[in-house]
Amino acid sequence: MSWPPFILFTDYGLEGPYVGHLHLQIAAACPGADVIDLQHDVPPFRPQGGGLLLASQLPWVPEGGIVIGVVDPGVGTQRRGLILHWCGRRLIGPDNGLFAPLLQEAERIVAIDWMPTEISATFHGRDWFVPAALRLAQGLAVAGHVISAKSCIGHEWPQDLDEVVYVDRFGNLITGRRGATLSTEAEIVVGIHRLRWARTFGERPVGAPFWHVNALGLVELSVNQGSAAELLGLKVGDPVRVSE
Amino acid sequence: MSWPPFILFTDYGLEGPYVGHLHLQIAAACPGADVIDLQHDVPPFRPQGGGLLLASQLPWVPEGGIVIGVVDPGVGTQRRGLILHWCGRRLIGPDNGLFAPLLQEAERIVAIDWMPTEISATFHGRDWFVPAALRLAQGLAVAGHVISAKSCIGHEWPQDLDEVVYVDRFGNLITGRRGATLSTEAEIVVGIHRLRWARTFGERPVGAPFWHVNALGLVELSVNQGSAAELLGLKVGDPVRVSE
Amino acid sequence: MSWPPFILFTDYGLEGPYVGHLHLQIAAACPGADVIDLQHDVPPFRPQGGGLLLASQLPWVPEGGIVIGVVDPGVGTQRRGLILHWCGRRLIGPDNGLFAPLLQEAERIVAIDWMPTEISATFHGRDWFVPAALRLAQGLAVAGHVISAKSCIGHEWPQDLDEVVYVDRFGNLITGRRGATLSTEAEIVVGIHRLRWARTFGERPVGAPFWHVNALGLVELSVNQGSAAELLGLKVGDPVRVSE
Repeated sequence: MSWPPFILFTDYGLEGPYVGHLHLQIAAACPGADVIDLQHDVPPFRPQGGGLLLASQLPWVPEGGIVIGVVDPGVGTQRRGLILHWCGRRLIGPDNGLFAPLLQEAERIVAIDWMPTEISATFHGRDWFVPAALRLAQGLAVAGHVISAKSCIGHEWPQDLDEVVYVDRFGNLITGRRGATLSTEAEIVVGIHRLRWARTFGERPVGAPFWHVNALGLVELSVNQGSAAELLGLKVGDPVRVSE
Repeated sequence: MSWPPFILFTDYGLEGPYVGHLHLQIAAACPGADVIDLQHDVPPFRPQGGGLLLASQLPWVPEGGIVIGVVDPGVGTQRRGLILHWCGRRLIGPDNGLFAPLLQEAERIVAIDWMPTEISATFHGRDWFVPAALRLAQGLAVAGHVISAKSCIGHEWPQDLDEVVYVDRFGNLITGRRGATLSTEAEIVVGIHRLRWARTFGERPVGAPFWHVNALGLVELSVNQGSAAELLGLKVGDPVRVSE
Repeated sequence: MSWPPFILFTDYGLEGPYVGHLHLQIAAACPGADVIDLQHDVPPFRPQGGGLLLASQLPWVPEGGIVIGVVDPGVGTQRRGLILHWCGRRLIGPDNGLFAPLLQEAERIVAIDWMPTEISATFHGRDWFVPAALRLAQGLAVAGHVISAKSCIGHEWPQDLDEVVYVDRFGNLITGRRGATLSTEAEIVVGIHRLRWARTFGERPVGAPFWHVNALGLVELSVNQGSAAELLGLKVGDPVRVSE
């Protein structure tokens, strides 16, 4: 049997045993499946920013893929689990805004009623969302009921967020603003800095800040061979201002 | 041919080329095999704590799986290599206590006599334990002799250790104490703090410390949306006191 | 269909979504292929040191494997992409010295003329080098022209570099010097320290520095149960002196 690829997008961190347990569950039920660690250092406690990061990356997820998305500060409390059908992919995770940017375009949104009998209080990724994904992959039913986009957390959130949603190891600042919404004449204002657009790093002098549309399609603040996070003093959650 | 899944549990760190070399060896001999990075930041130099971490996770390892476990400060000196047969899994690694919690229940313990002709002085994971695992997977003999649990390092160690054995990226403190051994009335005492039980994070106010049975079945000290490591000032190897 | 293994060697870091995107591309085109994260924390901006690290590891890459090597500070500017045929492996990446140590022994060096129509300015690993690798794996043509080793960046660089090329999580200092070029009588001089050879960690007292030939075949400066980086105050790019 040939399995769909599983794509993992979480805030678990690569450290520790957590990601490994997702892989164990998948290997036990769907041996040989492709399991892709798309990102595991999604900033915790921030489903809105995480959702924009995820949405920007979905075009690269193979059709047929099953995405398990977990940024889940409410784990163990009452919050729904969702299955989204979106452009040939299925996404599984908590109803807390992580899938908000996809709600309008989703062909179908299902609130999961099924739950395994044994489930930990703190690790629903392993104990609920992955098992649901495995059932989908195996062609088994996952009990649930169709719900409306409007009933989901974050359905009214905008598709762009002028805020840092991720800082990479080089200190590049990824924002929640889609690059396609800005002209190359726009400037990003951060304190005393006015950042102009450049196509790529090599077009700017070493040490100079600029903004560009990154490889995910998002507006990113960077410094050629330097750290924008350090130079601009920004971190995840900090706002930036667009001057058009 | 269908290979058993290989499960890697080491202190190599995900950084650097070390884990990659384990994967290279496996891909060369058993192409297409599932290889699962269960955990690679097991605290170094502490086979006892690492062993309790490993034992707590084995129930999630698929039956038939081959676990390569390496926390091996004695690499390159005289210490035996072991193959444990435990509940349908096989475990391979050094005889230094890393498998101590499993010795009593092991159906068979074999000291490995086989050794490849080319072997580095410092990387027995790649050069000895993985090659032995590959031979097992291929159905080839690995020369060795059956030994008793009592002859193994750590055979007299307890099944619980009231000590921090791992600190995760959120600052949660995982102890070597199995949750099933404590009543929910028990308290964990750390300096001036007396931690009471809660089922999960959301049941406690933000910033408040508590203990819970984590998703591995171990007692864990946590702070809702905060770092227990910071609040309590504990690190790996530090003792905690259980007050029942 | 059975795919060759893909081996990834980059400076992208395991953090963030970058490595995940390489895996997504491969899973979409070659489902079920073995994809090995050999190393993703190769020091950035230093193709020379990275090249020596890569060359030292190639003997462990399975024959038939396709290596995607990316340390690419010049991404988005004019620099060629290369395919090297080397001892039954193929390597794909930028012409900036990362493959320099392999140029003499390469059976064939091809400058890639092919380029996908959609390509980002900053992520040629995902958008150019991996797609080229996938075409090779699928048996499709990748337009290019054969070039000479002498036309490639770094063709005149030495095969050894007495410099720290990588610092691992334990603080071991890997140099660009091949161990086979030194006698065990040689000493490594760092400031007031004269390091003598030892076969492995356990042969030296705890806390004492020494040099050894590491499991990649490179000269490495280490401290038994300690950090050579801290003790010696060295970092990537710092020179060391060999006294023979």
